[in-house]
Amino acid sequence: MAGELKLEIAISVDGYVAGPNQSEKEPLGEGGEQLHEWALKLHTWRERHGREGGEVNPSGELMEEALRGTGATIMGRKMFGGGPGPWGADPWTGWWGDDPPFHHPVFVLTNHERAPLELADTTFHFVSDGIESALAQAREAAGPKDIKLAGGANACQQYLAAGLVDEIQLNVAPVLLGGGERLFDNVGSDLKLEQTLVVHTPEVTHLRYRAGAGT
Amino acid sequence: MAGELKLEIAISVDGYVAGPNQSEKEPLGEGGEQLHEWALKLHTWRERHGREGGEVNPSGELMEEALRGTGATIMGRKMFGGGPGPWGADPWTGWWGDDPPFHHPVFVLTNHERAPLELADTTFHFVSDGIESALAQAREAAGPKDIKLAGGANACQQYLAAGLVDEIQLNVAPVLLGGGERLFDNVGSDLKLEQTLVVHTPEVTHLRYRAGAGT
Repeated sequence: MAGELKLEIAISVDGYVAGPNQSEKEPLGEGGEQLHEWALKLHTWRERHGREGGEVNPSGELMEEALRGTGATIMGRKMFGGGPGPWGADPWTGWWGDDPPFHHPVFVLTNHERAPLELADTTFHFVSDGIESALAQAREAAGPKDIKLAGGANACQQYLAAGLVDEIQLNVAPVLLGGGERLFDNVGSDLKLEQTLVVHTPEVTHLRYRAGAGT
Repeated sequence: MAGELKLEIAISVDGYVAGPNQSEKEPLGEGGEQLHEWALKLHTWRERHGREGGEVNPSGELMEEALRGTGATIMGRKMFGGGPGPWGADPWTGWWGDDPPFHHPVFVLTNHERAPLELADTTFHFVSDGIESALAQAREAAGPKDIKLAGGANACQQYLAAGLVDEIQLNVAPVLLGGGERLFDNVGSDLKLEQTLVVHTPEVTHLRYRAGAGT
């Protein structure tokens, strides 16, 4: 049985997945780092990023479960970074250094062709022929495991609007950003949701939904 | 000790408290009634509205607790209904019939003066000199009990932007509306939130936050 496409993303109470005025200095926009504070404290996250210590709690258990079940990741060009336009002669290699924390194939949606980039045991594939092609390639790479749709807003909106997402997990951080990129812009109301899991710590609430084409 | 101003409202996963194209026939907009389906099934709600039966679950317990603790309600003109502009000679008396389910004073924000309207043990007071006046009057009427800010979006936004809300409870229904009135438009990012309670059933998740002026 093929894996599912699972959107998992940190979001503010007012619905933003990045704050206003994104820049190279503040890639998540003003205030956007607050969306991820809960994650950076987790033992699971820290271990994955080569650091010690950290909290063990229900958020960490969800993260462990997702890491075990994920065989490929899809992300938008903006999340991969390096600015818009052609890649150039000495192209950007991502935010994550020489040993990215994915440890599985990552498919980057882009309008500009580029050869695969291999960094330790993570290979970035650049897909310029559309979201369905990226999903098919990711599904092939993931085998029986799931595919994580990691962001940013635009990539998520395209997959949601096309009805290709099987599960949505919102990690709701207790913060208002007041502007920036909304997850659910341009998605419409056709998707039918079924609430399947709610897990919370004092710092975040995880809301999980099955997404379907409806009746 | 004076009561607190508590915003409690049903909201879609994509952040809307009413759907698109609100009309007299669909006062909550297209799809907006889905936001309240969980509530209408509750024994507590049905009893309050003179009906029998209904479910007893954690959502109902929260509703009971709120009903016991609330001494006054504030709402916007649009939520009270009857269309915009002056009230006229035979004015609209609300959506709730001869015995409205509030059983305490209700303060309606409006730009147009009107004498109080008494229906059974609920009196509607029409406040045309601003949100702070309405809050002061509601607090006086509520005594030691809390004041519920019931909606709609515009009234909530005004109180949130002014930093006058002590607690926010979002009743998140598993639905996308794709358009309509967003709760958090025009609110900005100044409010600091602390997540204080998460309660869920399969049909709704209640997210409660303390709201403060921040650091």
